[in-house]
Amino acid sequence: MAIKNKDITSRDDDFAKWYTDIVKKADLVDYSSVKGSMIIRPYGYAIWENMVNVLDKMFKEHGVLNMQMPMFIPESLLNIEKEHVEGFAPEAAWVTEGGSVPLEERMCVRPTSEVLFCEHFKKIIKSYRDLPLIYNQWCTIVRWEKTTRPFLRSREILWQEGHTMHATAEEAMARTLEMLHVYEDFQKNYLAIPVIIGPKTDKEKFAGAEKTYSLEAMMYDGVALQNGTSHYFGNNFAKAFGIEFLNKDNELVTPYQTSWGVTTRMLGALIMVHSDDNGLVLPPKIAPTKVIIIPIGEVSETLEKIENALKENAISYVVDNSDKSPGFKFAESEVKGYPIRIELGARDLEKGIITLVRRDTLEKIEVKIEDDICEKINEIMASMQTDMYEKARIRRDSMIYEANDYEEFKSIAKSKNGFIKVNWCGKEECENKIKDDTGLKSRCILEDEKVNNTCIVCKEKAKYRIFFGKQY
Amino acid sequence: MAIKNKDITSRDDDFAKWYTDIVKKADLVDYSSVKGSMIIRPYGYAIWENMVNVLDKMFKEHGVLNMQMPMFIPESLLNIEKEHVEGFAPEAAWVTEGGSVPLEERMCVRPTSEVLFCEHFKKIIKSYRDLPLIYNQWCTIVRWEKTTRPFLRSREILWQEGHTMHATAEEAMARTLEMLHVYEDFQKNYLAIPVIIGPKTDKEKFAGAEKTYSLEAMMYDGVALQNGTSHYFGNNFAKAFGIEFLNKDNELVTPYQTSWGVTTRMLGALIMVHSDDNGLVLPPKIAPTKVIIIPIGEVSETLEKIENALKENAISYVVDNSDKSPGFKFAESEVKGYPIRIELGARDLEKGIITLVRRDTLEKIEVKIEDDICEKINEIMASMQTDMYEKARIRRDSMIYEANDYEEFKSIAKSKNGFIKVNWCGKEECENKIKDDTGLKSRCILEDEKVNNTCIVCKEKAKYRIFFGKQY
Repeated sequence: MAIKNKDITSRDDDFAKWYTDIVKKADLVDYSSVKGSMIIRPYGYAIWENMVNVLDKMFKEHGVLNMQMPMFIPESLLNIEKEHVEGFAPEAAWVTEGGSVPLEERMCVRPTSEVLFCEHFKKIIKSYRDLPLIYNQWCTIVRWEKTTRPFLRSREILWQEGHTMHATAEEAMARTLEMLHVYEDFQKNYLAIPVIIGPKTDKEKFAGAEKTYSLEAMMYDGVALQNGTSHYFGNNFAKAFGIEFLNKDNELVTPYQTSWGVTTRMLGALIMVHSDDNGLVLPPKIAPTKVIIIPIGEVSETLEKIENALKENAISYVVDNSDKSPGFKFAESEVKGYPIRIELGARDLEKGIITLVRRDTLEKIEVKIEDDICEKINEIMASMQTDMYEKARIRRDSMIYEANDYEEFKSIAKSKNGFIKVNWCGKEECENKIKDDTGLKSRCILEDEKVNNTCIVCKEKAKYRIFFGKQY
Repeated sequence: MAIKNKDITSRDDDFAKWYTDIVKKADLVDYSSVKGSMIIRPYGYAIWENMVNVLDKMFKEHGVLNMQMPMFIPESLLNIEKEHVEGFAPEAAWVTEGGSVPLEERMCVRPTSEVLFCEHFKKIIKSYRDLPLIYNQWCTIVRWEKTTRPFLRSREILWQEGHTMHATAEEAMARTLEMLHVYEDFQKNYLAIPVIIGPKTDKEKFAGAEKTYSLEAMMYDGVALQNGTSHYFGNNFAKAFGIEFLNKDNELVTPYQTSWGVTTRMLGALIMVHSDDNGLVLPPKIAPTKVIIIPIGEVSETLEKIENALKENAISYVVDNSDKSPGFKFAESEVKGYPIRIELGARDLEKGIITLVRRDTLEKIEVKIEDDICEKINEIMASMQTDMYEKARIRRDSMIYEANDYEEFKSIAKSKNGFIKVNWCGKEECENKIKDDTGLKSRCILEDEKVNNTCIVCKEKAKYRIFFGKQY
């Protein structure tokens, strides 16, 4: 085991401070005079770029077309759907002057773009032949948060927002779930993050949606992070905007809509699920650079061979040739979270071996000089990818509790972080009582679990299995 | 030759109207209630995405690291470099309220991000070991233009902005030129657009730059379009921001800076250089979809074979299976500018042939059914790519004039669009006189051409070869 990095607070001592140390020391973000916003530095951006590339490819396999809306929304346009404006106007940033002249109508910087898409859809949807429309944009949005934290809650957020229109309610609901499952697949298989998916309660759903599905992940400290949402709108917005089309029977009817998004929050989740007191731990599939080589002594001949092999096998790598000490370089490489470190030592080479260190376990693996090092690296990375998921899943499952009565619920809520599963009648007053008494919010409804009891609060017949937790 | 598309104005009759027809009919853009901004529709965005993918790969081969700055700039930060703020503040959009509260200091939506980069560079540059920094971001910017036109001049623009810092002036100047040549390479070899590159006059350079190099393209109508710029800042900004580093001799010195950018304008250039009265003409290397197949009659068996072959050869394609007439489909395919149309007719098949139509010439090419159709398509696309460049170059060269005295200059300027080459003393008053008399602005200095005469205006000794033109 390497010695603990002294520049990083221990995550068991102060999780919030640990998180801030990681994002700063690993050169993921920096601050500027733009309060509440962050600079995403090249190393952090490279991780986001990998996420974007994988997700964008998955989207395209699901028939998604990218496009780009303006970043501004005139106030009158935002005002068209009542619930929506009530949800977003309080957090809006307003542009009131352009080209040295006060604007006739102020415009907000988009907090989300449903209204812009609706205005456009109204113009381009005439007939059932124009449907479905499966659109997406990669962009930034602005929400004027009071307290901010890099990646988790920021005034400006990088994200994608998908917006779709369908001829029928069934098709729109199927698309809502299809994209939810794309996110689940991505987070599970690339980010190695286990998620629980299900509908939000009416209280917690998106402003203007009929149903909001979310992906709920648990961080190392037992606190929940909502890591993406997929919304079914029914035809609420379509009606408010007067969007209609001629169906196959030549009748004028209203289409059905969805929207769905994930953000740079996923970077926050990636850190808070996997990283440790030595720095970042990145799942190999999403790490921008898979391997760091640290040469120790005169090893240039072998170094060249290894570099060529890595290039041939398209395994990305860096070489730390600086004049720092090996110990310092090891620590640095752990802060940055390269999945594999090659300690290429002259003494090891004399013995015919090369030492690999896998970042998640810090296990040292000796490889014979005549072995196929790339095959070995790929093997280790494949194990690492699944092991990281399993480790996260086991930790999460160990912090999922079941409360059978309200006293037990309050006692767990008071003593531990984690998720608490309960039976619930579906009434907002019971949900509110839990929030008022314990500070915990409902995460999502567990549709696959059986309801066979009474509501934990009012003791009336339960309709839903649901879980509660603290949240980021 | 196909019959002229009646929905598109002829470009020789009304070039501006023709341009608007093309961007609308080819589904590239749409308008919204956000005045002066555009919606980039999926087909237009797919072209931009291709440009981004190619350029981003080229940038990375040149050591460029992507990252992301906030979109807002506090007024006090913008004010630090005097020339810069004078250039950009008049066109700024100002955010004055956030989260229902007036801001203590208003912020503009970035018109460009030099000042944000400088603030960051000041924090992270300590030693010569930290240099060079070769950063870039893909984002949108806002400039409050009074008159707008899709892609050419818009209040919100998609672009990339590269920002670099170097230990020496020589290295910074070399980077300025390196990126200029990346742009030239891209525009020549992917967009099939010939460009003239060279420095702008002091009057026309970027606000705050010591030297601005531009890429000047000529549109079909003889009007110039500045299609990208690369700026050398010297250490103007670095001094204004107090950026210093310890050099190898342990002295505190100021670094040297560049920035460079291209925008969605390139889409405007692409249209105005290549497209015709039937619609878009896209260079194959940048077309989102290379082939459209139009089946006529019962051809399903051959269609399947062709589709499989295209898939195997990774040639992107669409099939128009709608119930419209073949003639209508042909016209539509020309509007969209697919490089190759496969007219797959049952009668042709009986004769053992398949008809290909290349979009730039509308030439029909018969292929035998037993031939390798993908090989043929790749051959045609390769010719098309080089032919389109040559055609554009020949047309441009035919509209480059040489004026030997000022009367001749004014006479050409009055009677023709195009570029006029002259000798110039280098004084701004002569440049201004040309602009006042003819409306023409200087494009860029022709560094490779010999100066051997007197200034066209003042008749003093000429220092530069330069050319003038009308501009978009």
